[in-house]
Amino acid sequence: MDFTIQNALVPFDTGYQEVDVQIQAGRITAIGSSLTVIGTAIEARNKLLLPGFVNAHTHSSEMWQRGLVHPYPLELWIGELYDFVPLEPEQVYLSALGTAVETLLTGGTTVVDHLVPIPGLEMETVAAVERAYREVGIRAFVAPLLQDESLPASLPSGGYEVSHPPYIRNTATTLELIQAVVDQFHRPAEGIFVATAPTGMQLCSDALFEGFGALSDRYNLCRHTHLLETKAQQMLAQEKYGCSAVEHLKHLNFLGPRTSLAHCVWLTDRDIEILAETQSTVVHNPLSNLRLGSGIAPVLKYLQAGVNVSFGCDGSASNDSQDLLEAIKIGSILHNVTDLDYRHWISPRQAVEMAALGGAKGLGLADQIGTVEVGKQADLVLYDLKNLSLLPRTDPIGLLVLGRPTQVVDSVWVRGNRVVAEGQVTTVDVGQLQQQLFERSQWTYNRQSSSVPQMEAHYRAVMGLPE
Amino acid sequence: MDFTIQNALVPFDTGYQEVDVQIQAGRITAIGSSLTVIGTAIEARNKLLLPGFVNAHTHSSEMWQRGLVHPYPLELWIGELYDFVPLEPEQVYLSALGTAVETLLTGGTTVVDHLVPIPGLEMETVAAVERAYREVGIRAFVAPLLQDESLPASLPSGGYEVSHPPYIRNTATTLELIQAVVDQFHRPAEGIFVATAPTGMQLCSDALFEGFGALSDRYNLCRHTHLLETKAQQMLAQEKYGCSAVEHLKHLNFLGPRTSLAHCVWLTDRDIEILAETQSTVVHNPLSNLRLGSGIAPVLKYLQAGVNVSFGCDGSASNDSQDLLEAIKIGSILHNVTDLDYRHWISPRQAVEMAALGGAKGLGLADQIGTVEVGKQADLVLYDLKNLSLLPRTDPIGLLVLGRPTQVVDSVWVRGNRVVAEGQVTTVDVGQLQQQLFERSQWTYNRQSSSVPQMEAHYRAVMGLPE
Repeated sequence: MDFTIQNALVPFDTGYQEVDVQIQAGRITAIGSSLTVIGTAIEARNKLLLPGFVNAHTHSSEMWQRGLVHPYPLELWIGELYDFVPLEPEQVYLSALGTAVETLLTGGTTVVDHLVPIPGLEMETVAAVERAYREVGIRAFVAPLLQDESLPASLPSGGYEVSHPPYIRNTATTLELIQAVVDQFHRPAEGIFVATAPTGMQLCSDALFEGFGALSDRYNLCRHTHLLETKAQQMLAQEKYGCSAVEHLKHLNFLGPRTSLAHCVWLTDRDIEILAETQSTVVHNPLSNLRLGSGIAPVLKYLQAGVNVSFGCDGSASNDSQDLLEAIKIGSILHNVTDLDYRHWISPRQAVEMAALGGAKGLGLADQIGTVEVGKQADLVLYDLKNLSLLPRTDPIGLLVLGRPTQVVDSVWVRGNRVVAEGQVTTVDVGQLQQQLFERSQWTYNRQSSSVPQMEAHYRAVMGLPE
Repeated sequence: MDFTIQNALVPFDTGYQEVDVQIQAGRITAIGSSLTVIGTAIEARNKLLLPGFVNAHTHSSEMWQRGLVHPYPLELWIGELYDFVPLEPEQVYLSALGTAVETLLTGGTTVVDHLVPIPGLEMETVAAVERAYREVGIRAFVAPLLQDESLPASLPSGGYEVSHPPYIRNTATTLELIQAVVDQFHRPAEGIFVATAPTGMQLCSDALFEGFGALSDRYNLCRHTHLLETKAQQMLAQEKYGCSAVEHLKHLNFLGPRTSLAHCVWLTDRDIEILAETQSTVVHNPLSNLRLGSGIAPVLKYLQAGVNVSFGCDGSASNDSQDLLEAIKIGSILHNVTDLDYRHWISPRQAVEMAALGGAKGLGLADQIGTVEVGKQADLVLYDLKNLSLLPRTDPIGLLVLGRPTQVVDSVWVRGNRVVAEGQVTTVDVGQLQQQLFERSQWTYNRQSSSVPQMEAHYRAVMGLPE
């Protein structure tokens, strides 16, 4: 398990150096020139070595709906998503494998799976993804998406009379469920973490947020939730709380250095100050925000305010891929159109830092992963700089972030274990996975939603759209 | 050269059909079930057959600077671009090969190369790319980027005293040059077209536009130019003409059904009407517009006004890739954040039509390419639907456009000639190309521009940015 990477190109200051990196017992033990080879020698000349990135927000089982849901805003998109028959645990296992493989092959070593549990088979759903992530060998945060209010509650009333049916599971049962998940699956030393992850303020009671917060404190768990993804949610927060959702979450003590918040598109300047004060992390999901028309998150403002920002792919029904390099590229350059002053724009190096160290910070692991440094765990990725999509040679990180790298990941190690070698995943049979995904699906087109028509008139009225 | 594609999935109406397609002498001669095999049989079960896309705006030789130029707006970015030592024709040949290969492997069968000529070696530059495109076998529009004003003229004065040195080549000489290029290289029957392509209103005199327009009329050449890419250009047009650049180009008779206009970010509603009236085509380059912070082109307004829109990658110094599927994805979903009403959003099918037929229309070739129809030329692409990035099976076009397809192009034919088979380019040695690109370049970082500091103070003052 010990190894020495030789002659890798590593970013230093404003340039690069060709160095050797020694790894022993899963940790980086030395970085320098012409080091003694310890364990296996890995020749890395003309390869770029970076810390692994974090896919800081996804929903793995949405892979079954990718390419399928119509161009809708979140509130109708989710209606169409609810039309699908619940998956079986074996399918959830396969889509978690697919999510992990795509993440690894685009530079990610950690995935945060805001996992949609199958109703009645919640523990089995968690077990299925846990098995997948252990088999692949990716570092995983399993964050069961839990709520205690039913879907219609997520729309602002807009002053209209609305009624919400009760949710299938009450608050107390939901808290018992997450307690059981923690007991059975939270194993940080083995690279499998459970996070408390209420769906979002649009579908959760205060009691649920407080219960999850208490559990997080007791076990030192990360907290993760959706936050102000859409304008409709901003309107809902005002109706529900009479203040912004951020102010309310602060009031509930849900924010903090172990809290990561997916989306954060519709925040005020005061909200941004609160995120900075509480050291909360924003997970930026640029592709999903565009696909659903949610808006452009004010990421340059976050960075200027000192808020930590990382990148996520979001679930494949709203992106529809798990290509982390795509999320990093678009999540960097998208913001250039929001600020004429280019001195505020995100540089490729800054984007890499957000994706690696920013991701680690949001998970409370900045002292463990996120940089190539002696003492840190070996979550590392080697990129092949002789790949056509990274040629001709210029600035390696510029090419990686601003180009469109295709099959450039040569090797990946997670906690010192090699899980990708010569561009191939070594831990699971990807050919067999493809076969399984193919056989368990069929071509689908012109699908008609049964839920969307029921919600559409109210949505359009509330959002001020013509009938 | 005759062949029959069997059992390909082809979009029809709102669904798909599995059909055979006969190709004879470079044209589609029959589409149907269980056709007699004519020529070579191509098994295409579980593959999607689409018309080839058009990479409707690029600058091939910028591949040598990809990943390199700092995050700057166009007006400073171009200053840094001008710092580079001019290339040699052999380098231009290699980057044209690279551009063609990346375009083919992401679904493109036609490239529009707004080619930057090497000063003093203009004919040699054109000859270099023409050789590359003939060797690869891609359909190519070679559009030498020509101007008759010097770079400082492209900035609005903002009321400050400014002087512009004369350009290296006067208007008459420039018109002679393009005439010579047409005489020597314009060979439509062989898939090589010359287009008249003034750089843009920011660097061209009225006389140049009129001369190019006259040449275009005489030889039935396409017209191509940059148009209102940035806010600074919008300001410049008002200074230079006292009206919008679109109104001025209309006045110069440069607009029309054979005219394609790259970018079109800063147009007024009246400008949009003019594009519709003149049947001009907008080439949308979403990645470049984000990278340079130019803005979001009002593409949904163009479509609603009946303006034809196609997609381009733009040069690799401002994107920095030639991945057409990336341009199509981002160029579709980006606009969802500009209009709350999802009924106006671009569907994956519409995106495919824009990329193929829209591209063809903009080049005056809508009767020849852009759809899979009997009588049309066989510019065709087969996508492998068993690729992991397109699994599980759902809607093939949804997966292709909204996902992040990686190495999914199985086969490409241009004018009936197979140029990609089993994912590999068959006409040129891509391994050798990689080797050449690698050897003729070197790692570069922390490059300091000599031109940008000279332009920066004026740019910031004119754009109202703090010192």
